[in-house]
Amino acid sequence: MTTYNAPVEDMMFLFDNLKDNKEYKEIDKFKEINSDLVKDILVQAAKINQDIVHPLAKAGDDNPCVYENGIVRSPPGYKEAYNKFINDGWTSLSCDPKYGGQGMPKTVSTFFEEMLSSASLSFKLYSELSIGAYNCILHHADEKIKEKFLPKIVEGKWSGTMCLTESQCGTDLGLIKTKAIKNSDGSFSLTGQKIFITSGDHDLTENIIHLVLAKVPGSPHGTKGISLFLVPKFNVNENGSVGSRNGVSTLSIETKMGIKGSPTCVLNFDNAKGFLIGKENKGLSSMFTMMNLERIIVGIQGLGIAETAYQNSLAYCKERKQGKSNDNTNNETDLIIKHADIRRSLMTMKSLIEGQRSLAFWLSQQVDVSLNHSNEKIKKEADDMVSLMTPVVKSFFSDMGMEITNEAIQVFGGYGYTRDQGIEQLYRDNRITPIYEGTNSVQAIDLVFRKVLSNKILDKFVNLIRNEINNNKDNPELKNFSDILEKKIITLLNFAKYLEQKLKIQKDDVSAACNDFLKVLGYVSLGFSWLKMTKISFKNSNKNKDFYNEKINTAKYFFDKIFPRVDSHYQSAITGSESIMKAKFH
Amino acid sequence: MTTYNAPVEDMMFLFDNLKDNKEYKEIDKFKEINSDLVKDILVQAAKINQDIVHPLAKAGDDNPCVYENGIVRSPPGYKEAYNKFINDGWTSLSCDPKYGGQGMPKTVSTFFEEMLSSASLSFKLYSELSIGAYNCILHHADEKIKEKFLPKIVEGKWSGTMCLTESQCGTDLGLIKTKAIKNSDGSFSLTGQKIFITSGDHDLTENIIHLVLAKVPGSPHGTKGISLFLVPKFNVNENGSVGSRNGVSTLSIETKMGIKGSPTCVLNFDNAKGFLIGKENKGLSSMFTMMNLERIIVGIQGLGIAETAYQNSLAYCKERKQGKSNDNTNNETDLIIKHADIRRSLMTMKSLIEGQRSLAFWLSQQVDVSLNHSNEKIKKEADDMVSLMTPVVKSFFSDMGMEITNEAIQVFGGYGYTRDQGIEQLYRDNRITPIYEGTNSVQAIDLVFRKVLSNKILDKFVNLIRNEINNNKDNPELKNFSDILEKKIITLLNFAKYLEQKLKIQKDDVSAACNDFLKVLGYVSLGFSWLKMTKISFKNSNKNKDFYNEKINTAKYFFDKIFPRVDSHYQSAITGSESIMKAKFH
Repeated sequence: MTTYNAPVEDMMFLFDNLKDNKEYKEIDKFKEINSDLVKDILVQAAKINQDIVHPLAKAGDDNPCVYENGIVRSPPGYKEAYNKFINDGWTSLSCDPKYGGQGMPKTVSTFFEEMLSSASLSFKLYSELSIGAYNCILHHADEKIKEKFLPKIVEGKWSGTMCLTESQCGTDLGLIKTKAIKNSDGSFSLTGQKIFITSGDHDLTENIIHLVLAKVPGSPHGTKGISLFLVPKFNVNENGSVGSRNGVSTLSIETKMGIKGSPTCVLNFDNAKGFLIGKENKGLSSMFTMMNLERIIVGIQGLGIAETAYQNSLAYCKERKQGKSNDNTNNETDLIIKHADIRRSLMTMKSLIEGQRSLAFWLSQQVDVSLNHSNEKIKKEADDMVSLMTPVVKSFFSDMGMEITNEAIQVFGGYGYTRDQGIEQLYRDNRITPIYEGTNSVQAIDLVFRKVLSNKILDKFVNLIRNEINNNKDNPELKNFSDILEKKIITLLNFAKYLEQKLKIQKDDVSAACNDFLKVLGYVSLGFSWLKMTKISFKNSNKNKDFYNEKINTAKYFFDKIFPRVDSHYQSAITGSESIMKAKFH
Repeated sequence: MTTYNAPVEDMMFLFDNLKDNKEYKEIDKFKEINSDLVKDILVQAAKINQDIVHPLAKAGDDNPCVYENGIVRSPPGYKEAYNKFINDGWTSLSCDPKYGGQGMPKTVSTFFEEMLSSASLSFKLYSELSIGAYNCILHHADEKIKEKFLPKIVEGKWSGTMCLTESQCGTDLGLIKTKAIKNSDGSFSLTGQKIFITSGDHDLTENIIHLVLAKVPGSPHGTKGISLFLVPKFNVNENGSVGSRNGVSTLSIETKMGIKGSPTCVLNFDNAKGFLIGKENKGLSSMFTMMNLERIIVGIQGLGIAETAYQNSLAYCKERKQGKSNDNTNNETDLIIKHADIRRSLMTMKSLIEGQRSLAFWLSQQVDVSLNHSNEKIKKEADDMVSLMTPVVKSFFSDMGMEITNEAIQVFGGYGYTRDQGIEQLYRDNRITPIYEGTNSVQAIDLVFRKVLSNKILDKFVNLIRNEINNNKDNPELKNFSDILEKKIITLLNFAKYLEQKLKIQKDDVSAACNDFLKVLGYVSLGFSWLKMTKISFKNSNKNKDFYNEKINTAKYFFDKIFPRVDSHYQSAITGSESIMKAKFH
């Protein structure tokens, strides 16, 4: 079985040193969120994740959810853990105090999301979609619905889902068939079938609040005719108590590669009573409030699982003896952590993980600004940046999670392939992250066509990085890092220019290049994060020598060993799509 | 569930057009193996693999091997299929007619290995190690043992294993503890425990012949004191009949990520009667006869599984509709095979798979020459080439198998993550291939330190490629391909030069670069294969236009889209190992 120790020190390093967004510091309500408070929260969070949640990862894999006679049962131990989890208030961490939340910024809650992902993705998913539903209701529902549903969701007594996918449509939601027919009391009756519904049914909460995309008859064709509805598993009485069963039933649950402790349901809606959220036919944009924040969290899932993979690989390398290293002098078998090649694996994991954590912290500040700043223009600018980086974090982090969990299996050799060790489970659990909430290719297309080609957000992001480079141009310690980063920025901009030109003459060249572009932007973003961490580390290196020297060394690894990947993505992409489109695939 | 259609046309394309090894054609006993005969064999092989073996893949995953009361039971259906398999003579395909084999060359049997891997790796493993044991006994045992054991193994009535690993040693066999004590009758009594023994026990054969590495007390320390023993599960009487149970018992079987239909056993040897194979203390080199051929086959496993992944992805792309392609004109939802990005995924799979199949066919000719040519010098030269390419094929093909099965899951979206589709199983089954028979990192170290740095085999291989380039330098159709390949060769040679220089001054730089070097050599070898296939395709393009134009187009994809990967591996590697070795990993 794997172990997990929350990286509180690294998180506090970021919180104490890299709160570098001026606008974030201007948000009044977060001014009291100081280092001591955050550390207290993280230490408590570490405890519950390490002691209570982490053992559920293996428990859920060994005893998957069970579907019997229309009822879904969660794995052993999940209910008790969930009760403690909500009693300790963890679902409410980032929610509005108005509805019982603790009002923590994303800069704090994102650390918690990472820990929970590291501890058990399956367990996390029971509450994760609740926060998604919370966000969606908070931003789009009327006050009456908010008052009726939000406090219970924030408390964790009720959970939430996102019901988008149907068997004929995942990516292409224009094909949705679920129908919503208006009743005389203003409510709607929904009929249809939804698949792949995470936490669609289970026994941890008193009620489940489904947010469902459906079509009102007569609405426009395609995605412009989709509306969003709140459909509870149990109807809720006027006084807020749980009433009769609504017309929602569970037809089956999926048998999956991983996240076996999380039920993925086929839900049947048969004249189920629902309430319109937001405006009719505007359901997709309302849902995307939920989806976008959710997509960032999927990236964080990849990061969290990668951290557990790294920690366990490292521990194994420090106890497993095999072979002799190059500087072996005593002719005795060495710990495998002495071998250059094994160390290379570990450094790949470490440099990606710490770079990603830093990037996520930077993005959390942008999210907080985009949601909370008093100045609308500043909010909009931050929102643009969030919108640029959301597909990057979702796809890049989840893909790197695959690379890292795969490396971890390899470090363990034959033991990595056995289920006892729990390492291969990390790969299987993480394998959903490049798929759900929009596949990584869809993210890449969204990035290129909606964010890069149609406006100037990329230029703003590049300016931000170049400012960082220029601000440090007299710092000799950073010169080498800055020079490499500047070269990669030039590649990124050339790539963007290539896409712009091709958009006009050969759109398939652009479509075929989206994945490569996303990767290039991902690596450049990590380089940006590493540059900032390196600057701080040089500055502080007298304070905590071991910690900061290791940071600088890890940065060097990233710039030397990981960054060259940018070039092959670029070189590959700019050869166009001729052979791709000409293929016959007999 | 997945489907499988053996790529007989592509295999016959290779057999008919790319038997380009002059020395191979000089092997007398293979002169009668003509195209018609091979086609007949492949068509029969396709039948059994598609109809009988392929359904066992899912059956074994759904109903893994069971260990109960010391006995291992194979999954339902395996026994019946195995009986048909051996009755039809498939185990004996490449074996010596002297012991009942059919004497087919590797050029034919490798195609069969691929098909069987595509159909079900778990099922394949029951007979695969038998062929390993066959090779080892054939080359190192005395005539009496050969006559006693080989016919039954060739017939498939008895199976074989390779018992190397113990809990404290996988890579580092010098640490072996299993003891062999000589008896007065010349036999040995073995005592110790072996782990991760593929097909270590099961109910498909009457007897299991273990080839076991052990130490005779008083023998030299480390790998120089290891001997090889034949230890049957049941003792074999003088008349060849199966006798009493030997002191070999099964303690447990592993619960694994994949290949669940194949039992991976912990075997206990308790004064088990064994017979020395080859010379005392020379066991490791005898075992490597078996290991080296086995390593190539592990690469072929990766190729075979990748083929199944590709075929099923392609079929899904031709039936799943989602979104609109760039040249959509009728505003109706398109098949996803119309999307540039999906086609890119398919082309990555296809170009790697067909390139690998061609490289494997070339290598098979080398193996046949190395084993069968009448001229010792030619044998040795071919053997050098085999020795260079064995780690490449093992590691590169198994790694590409991971990439391809991963891409396949992604093409299927959410469906790819469910077990019903069988796609995620391909990933899990293949995940053992980069680990067993020596991890891919160990292969890379073997490649660099034993084959590239210590002799001139790489130069010979490069000359071979350059001859191919030069022979076609007046062919304008090939110019672009040749030019790119030449550039990559220069990178490969610069990389080798870098390794040579660093070997003298900083050995860790070399160790840290081995994996990257193996990848570079892998891609260059595939480029070599694609160049040859392209030449033939241009030449023949009037005969079967569809087939040959598709080949040329796929080659173009490989050269444009895949080949740039070489550069990032090289650029990353030549930055050395300073940050790697300096890391503290607190």
